[in-house]
Amino acid sequence: MVRELSVKPIVMKLGGSVITDKEKKLTPNLPAIERLANEISRANVLSLVLVHGGGSFGHPVAEQYGLNEGYKDSSQVMGFSITHQAMTKLNKLIVGSLINHNIPAVEVQPSSCVVTKAGRIQSMEEKPLKKMLEMEFVPVLYGDVVVDSEAGFAILSGDQIVSSLAITLDARRIVVGVDVDGLFTGDPKTDSSARLIQHITLEGLKNLEPLIEGSKVTDVTGGMLGKMFELKPAVEHGIPAIIVNATEPNRVYRALKGEKVVGTVIER
Amino acid sequence: MVRELSVKPIVMKLGGSVITDKEKKLTPNLPAIERLANEISRANVLSLVLVHGGGSFGHPVAEQYGLNEGYKDSSQVMGFSITHQAMTKLNKLIVGSLINHNIPAVEVQPSSCVVTKAGRIQSMEEKPLKKMLEMEFVPVLYGDVVVDSEAGFAILSGDQIVSSLAITLDARRIVVGVDVDGLFTGDPKTDSSARLIQHITLEGLKNLEPLIEGSKVTDVTGGMLGKMFELKPAVEHGIPAIIVNATEPNRVYRALKGEKVVGTVIER
Repeated sequence: MVRELSVKPIVMKLGGSVITDKEKKLTPNLPAIERLANEISRANVLSLVLVHGGGSFGHPVAEQYGLNEGYKDSSQVMGFSITHQAMTKLNKLIVGSLINHNIPAVEVQPSSCVVTKAGRIQSMEEKPLKKMLEMEFVPVLYGDVVVDSEAGFAILSGDQIVSSLAITLDARRIVVGVDVDGLFTGDPKTDSSARLIQHITLEGLKNLEPLIEGSKVTDVTGGMLGKMFELKPAVEHGIPAIIVNATEPNRVYRALKGEKVVGTVIER
Repeated sequence: MVRELSVKPIVMKLGGSVITDKEKKLTPNLPAIERLANEISRANVLSLVLVHGGGSFGHPVAEQYGLNEGYKDSSQVMGFSITHQAMTKLNKLIVGSLINHNIPAVEVQPSSCVVTKAGRIQSMEEKPLKKMLEMEFVPVLYGDVVVDSEAGFAILSGDQIVSSLAITLDARRIVVGVDVDGLFTGDPKTDSSARLIQHITLEGLKNLEPLIEGSKVTDVTGGMLGKMFELKPAVEHGIPAIIVNATEPNRVYRALKGEKVVGTVIER
């Protein structure tokens, strides 16, 4: 009655800086969310998992309570609840927009199925998610506050979820939507000679690390280098990743369709 | 740094007929939610798990798409997404109200951690929830649409979750808040001779079954008899359950505190 999972999924990340206004606390970028839901709908991918970042719904609140340092005192417990509640609020906007575009999106809540150890995923229950993919749902996960077996709690980034899930699900490819065109040889915002790297291997990435470390292209979960670092295990596993600018119309659409698009491809 | 789970938890159910207006689709009973959050806050229970029903957020939507019959055709997939989204909307109101009353409530989403088989819980990931209890969070679950290994998907009632969780967590007791005073010898709404049963054993319950079957005290997940049926495994396990009228002020408070209160106690 229900088909087996026959198509390898695409795992797509939508960065918090794309779907929220990072300058204003708890402010979604609704036009961007709508446009991306439309692109995802048009791409009509068979087997897709979405993971989104927290942007101004996650990090400012988490930082206010020092959640990134783990459990220090009981005042943070309320902070965890409030941060998680804010993240689910953002998720509802995204899932709601996807549903409006006729995509059977279902929130999958990391805090309900993940335990980390010192900030790294220790266990993740994937049975419901895998069954959802079989049923042709689009599971939507997100960077979340989660319980941690050592630190009490931790902030689990969307990037870490993407890499871990891509490996577990043996994904076709990873698409990472950010607010820059991809990986540059320098900081494109300050260095006019910086050029986009269209294709890179893990070895090439290693050689570039000194350059990237100087880049100001950062986000609160660790900047572009942090993103690369998180993607590495999946790329080592043989899963190609493409980084595209999700603030530019149709780049996410093209990346999902596997069409030629401005961005950075990372392969083993 | 973080204490071990030393106190047995109370598992409390809040019926959908208490927290929503069951006559009006997608309509919360906000005054009831606020009052109950206040009672829960005042009771200040160490180690508490909440489970709420769907009321007018769950069942009318689920029925519209025939979700209770399992997967029949692909049109239901959108129905699943819409029903789940409605349930998370209700949950956000409840968790938000608890947070406003200084209770560190955290949504734990059944669809993210449960797979059923023919409508019965087949697997439930409990590690995050157990860790949350250790950390003194109040996990809040709910009746939800979930994936089902046989039927594709199923409706998982809050009552089934309560009984299953109470056993797994070796709960102190179960508190079930409904919109009637408890279990009656007849239908109190039509039969003036019906009297409240204040205490009953599993054997006594068995003897009463012919009477209860005639009762019109029903809710969409199977009426009072259905509730009893779901509670049985936990009561057999040695966990007492008390059914109270959560629409009456302070009954939930008293039941949580272990004080004398109008209601029906069910014990092995």
